[in-house]
Amino acid sequence: MKLIRFGAAGNEQPGIQSASGKYLDCSGFEEDWNEDFFTNNGLARLEKWLEANEENLNEIPADSRLGSPVARPSKIICIGLNYRKHALESGMPVPEIPIIFMKATSSLCGPFDNILIPKNSVKTDWEVELAVVIGKRTKYVSQEDAMDYVAGYCLHNDVSERDFQLNHGGQWVKGKSADNFAPLGPVLVTKTEIQDPHNLRLWLKLNGKMLQDSNTSDLVFNIPYLISHLSQYMTLLPGDVISTGTPAGVGLGLTPPTYLKVGDVVELGIDGLGESKQVAINDPEA
Amino acid sequence: MKLIRFGAAGNEQPGIQSASGKYLDCSGFEEDWNEDFFTNNGLARLEKWLEANEENLNEIPADSRLGSPVARPSKIICIGLNYRKHALESGMPVPEIPIIFMKATSSLCGPFDNILIPKNSVKTDWEVELAVVIGKRTKYVSQEDAMDYVAGYCLHNDVSERDFQLNHGGQWVKGKSADNFAPLGPVLVTKTEIQDPHNLRLWLKLNGKMLQDSNTSDLVFNIPYLISHLSQYMTLLPGDVISTGTPAGVGLGLTPPTYLKVGDVVELGIDGLGESKQVAINDPEA
Repeated sequence: MKLIRFGAAGNEQPGIQSASGKYLDCSGFEEDWNEDFFTNNGLARLEKWLEANEENLNEIPADSRLGSPVARPSKIICIGLNYRKHALESGMPVPEIPIIFMKATSSLCGPFDNILIPKNSVKTDWEVELAVVIGKRTKYVSQEDAMDYVAGYCLHNDVSERDFQLNHGGQWVKGKSADNFAPLGPVLVTKTEIQDPHNLRLWLKLNGKMLQDSNTSDLVFNIPYLISHLSQYMTLLPGDVISTGTPAGVGLGLTPPTYLKVGDVVELGIDGLGESKQVAINDPEA
Repeated sequence: MKLIRFGAAGNEQPGIQSASGKYLDCSGFEEDWNEDFFTNNGLARLEKWLEANEENLNEIPADSRLGSPVARPSKIICIGLNYRKHALESGMPVPEIPIIFMKATSSLCGPFDNILIPKNSVKTDWEVELAVVIGKRTKYVSQEDAMDYVAGYCLHNDVSERDFQLNHGGQWVKGKSADNFAPLGPVLVTKTEIQDPHNLRLWLKLNGKMLQDSNTSDLVFNIPYLISHLSQYMTLLPGDVISTGTPAGVGLGLTPPTYLKVGDVVELGIDGLGESKQVAINDPEA
């Protein structure tokens, strides 16, 4: 299945993308795609419900905004420097143990929402990433069992303010957490629909120019390793998002370094997970 | 007012501590002390409701567990090295700009719950802290206006695994996020009941021996500074918890360094915010 959420920010309704690509309204299922949904075996229940109801579902209005395909999770955990070339372009060693940091969940937004350049930002940057969504409570799991805990996958732009991240006091969360710094989606694709999550092309274009173009086969630490590792340090809850890191080609790594300015258009995609697009604007609240 | 939550973990009911110290059941108010409650002017509504109903409220059962006085927030943000002597005992410079890091919200627990020593832990440590609970959405606020955004204060033990924090890959969140690493409470004391949050004694005893004993007057960055600063980097949501840092006397700073072992008893307190007590046990899921 491919899950979507649509409607105004903060008031999204659940839906799916059908096999033929149509966006269908699942508000009749009367649940949001949130922690409770995943906890209570929601994916299996939804599948059964769709067997009975899919042909009668309405298409969502053509001008609908898409929201994040999962409702606000308990946490968004990101992996740092998890592609070799990106570590090098960042001037940092390839990690021997996963580097993890959090994004404030308040940064979550829809896949076509604007990137808001924060007040005082000088280095707002992009990062295409494969995000994994957790399906059930995960604690002290082995690598062998880790994939049992995955609900599915999403496309994620781990938007980052490099000056905030690296020069404002020592922990990366500061540069990762502004509003709309986590465009997620368009879809959550359930695990069984992705044959091999470690062989997916992922790419990102800035104003039409390809800047990131890699494959998840180049991950330093793969998905079962990451889930097992994280679950030693904290309990992952259903709906939690793990963003697995970005390949080379971010603004920080260009010569000269290049950052987002008003009107810039970022497009990104991952095989099987769809594409998203954001326009950079100044945060209207700044 | 002093808010509490009581009952089994994950199924807490709302309550208050009355002026005479009794714990009273507010389940009749039919709201949890969560983001929605604070967003929708819950404190003012509760105050009014108590005027009409307090004398008819039941005391909670004598053997009730206390939970965190606020329901799981969108984020728990901690401030690093925010007391001069603690920075020195940690072998780190006193920061010139606040160091911030996150704790996974899944680490939240009640004030008398056990501290769970995680699997493979060798350095589980304690940190008494003054926590601030946010009352309304906070973004780009000035220091002058920052206190308007505070709902109240809680006692917090920012339990930390030093080996995970400092030697497992570079971002502190790894050592701050295990289950039960955030005993909060017993009470959330609303802002107006604390005359000066920058003049509160805070202390912590291990097995009856006083190890931390300081005053919030020694904070490097005070509460309005922290709220204003944080709100430049991320939007604080109602119910969010900001833990303002710990004074000297943690296990890492002792000679020789000393960490929690099974059966150790930690007691802590802050003027006006009550006391809490935790016993260290091995995580039964480890």
